[in-house]
Amino acid sequence: MTNFRIDNLQYCNWSKQIFDINQDAKLDAIHVTIAYHEDLNEVKKNISEWKRHFKNYEDVILHGRTYKDIDLAHKLGKTAVFFGFQNCSPISDNIGLVEEIYKLGIVFMQLTYNNQSLLASGCYEDNDSGVTRMGKEVIKEMNRLGIVIDMSHSAEKSTLDAIDLSTRPIAITHANPSFWLDGKRSKSNRVLKALAKSDGMLGFSLYPHHLKGKGDCLLNSFCEMVARTVDMIGIKHVGIGSDLCTGHPDSVVDWMRNGKWTKNKDYGEGSAMNAGFPEQPSWFKDARGFENLEKGLFSVGFQENEVNDILGNNWYNFYQGINS
Amino acid sequence: MTNFRIDNLQYCNWSKQIFDINQDAKLDAIHVTIAYHEDLNEVKKNISEWKRHFKNYEDVILHGRTYKDIDLAHKLGKTAVFFGFQNCSPISDNIGLVEEIYKLGIVFMQLTYNNQSLLASGCYEDNDSGVTRMGKEVIKEMNRLGIVIDMSHSAEKSTLDAIDLSTRPIAITHANPSFWLDGKRSKSNRVLKALAKSDGMLGFSLYPHHLKGKGDCLLNSFCEMVARTVDMIGIKHVGIGSDLCTGHPDSVVDWMRNGKWTKNKDYGEGSAMNAGFPEQPSWFKDARGFENLEKGLFSVGFQENEVNDILGNNWYNFYQGINS
Repeated sequence: MTNFRIDNLQYCNWSKQIFDINQDAKLDAIHVTIAYHEDLNEVKKNISEWKRHFKNYEDVILHGRTYKDIDLAHKLGKTAVFFGFQNCSPISDNIGLVEEIYKLGIVFMQLTYNNQSLLASGCYEDNDSGVTRMGKEVIKEMNRLGIVIDMSHSAEKSTLDAIDLSTRPIAITHANPSFWLDGKRSKSNRVLKALAKSDGMLGFSLYPHHLKGKGDCLLNSFCEMVARTVDMIGIKHVGIGSDLCTGHPDSVVDWMRNGKWTKNKDYGEGSAMNAGFPEQPSWFKDARGFENLEKGLFSVGFQENEVNDILGNNWYNFYQGINS
Repeated sequence: MTNFRIDNLQYCNWSKQIFDINQDAKLDAIHVTIAYHEDLNEVKKNISEWKRHFKNYEDVILHGRTYKDIDLAHKLGKTAVFFGFQNCSPISDNIGLVEEIYKLGIVFMQLTYNNQSLLASGCYEDNDSGVTRMGKEVIKEMNRLGIVIDMSHSAEKSTLDAIDLSTRPIAITHANPSFWLDGKRSKSNRVLKALAKSDGMLGFSLYPHHLKGKGDCLLNSFCEMVARTVDMIGIKHVGIGSDLCTGHPDSVVDWMRNGKWTKNKDYGEGSAMNAGFPEQPSWFKDARGFENLEKGLFSVGFQENEVNDILGNNWYNFYQGINS
């Protein structure tokens, strides 16, 4: 049996060096963010840039469209790169654009990014009205086409609504359970159970603001959190979505948080004193940390097949489900 | 003392004939909708069309920017035309565009049009989360510049939030009280009282779906509703916003309801059997119905100065407040 290694969320300052690191880490696939606040034209520019990457670095990466590209990447020792949006800004108020983004190869789309969107409420809003009228229509359309609904940055009721409304399993590509670290971006037991019950996937995040103790978080604490989550929702519904943001200047996290929606400055999970990207823990500086995760998961008692499930096979099966 | 006649919401299929009717009705000012679902580029095209109207029909209309244009229109026997949006679609997710639309001469902007927007919840949503994070920022910016917040199509909590958050009086340019006709577009006593307390304005709608008995509504019933509203919130906070949609084919109301947010058909206040524009009541076929309103208001006991307040002077004072 083939075992896969998949990191289902990265947003790095892409370079040969980072693709090489992912290859060193034996990642067969990554899901990369190509929109936070972009409109459709800006997305197309980002895709042009990715096309250049696929050409310039064809020795290490290839464009992922279905699980078959993960098979191919694995065989060739490359990394398949799948596109996703962390926001619905590219479709604006136009449901007709859902099919357009599908044709562009978008595999995941968040219904919200922290704030209220036209589709649902983000986790930073004071109130959560759930999936909206347009949101219900867009979910149907995403289901029809096979674009995965991602609720990582969404609020509680909106997430439960999406799980309920979607006829296909959804994903929370990068977030951790609130039982471990309470916070706006963390997910309640209720959400995690509903997610697993509907065959959805949770990707554990390695972004320091999502870790207990931030950059000082211990590998063991992280792996114990994984074990407790698995005890609650089963081994088949969890994977990794590291949320790695390697190599960006701090202006990028400022843009991620503020987009164009405010003239003031919002610090999101950071603060005025700690406005920049946080420092990664020593055991997960980049994707090569998958080796540490493997050791850590063994040391909290997981069996080999379980470790492989968590580090990639579950995501591989999820990708298979999208196109079956 | 000068008495003004103002209809603070019209969205007609503009023509010389309609401008002449408004002039016959002695309307000194109208507020016209130039965006329901349009983005900023489409708004600019609509404004180009209005510039042609201002040139072609300069004998009867002029572009209204401040209350001084109402004075001028009154003096010249013309109608001043003020621009407004029934939705925030033209600013999209970009707070920087608020200043751009201000420079284009936009005087009113609804935060929502029936559905959830990036700023607040519309009255057709099942849940109302109130003014959003971006909504709070946009309200500050509209307050700074002097663009009036219009909550005609917004949900209850969102409307109360907007009244509370705005440092300037807001408007409900076209809606009726729910005590008279209960419905998603009607406004509760709580909203009307909060509106008046903050020096805001309610424009009574003559759109048949907002009238008790629709097109069969009696003038007397309408005027008694006005009287009861005045008893509750005072004479200074009410005016007319007829919501006249003269001359449009039914495809326009279909577009108003459906925009680009659904692939299905939404009938809004209508139904599959009654999908088109509804028939106006006999006493308000067009703006010349102001004469009937005048008679009707006298007959329910209003004094002359009160009738003048309702039919235009209150809106004139509100326009004065915007620029003072």
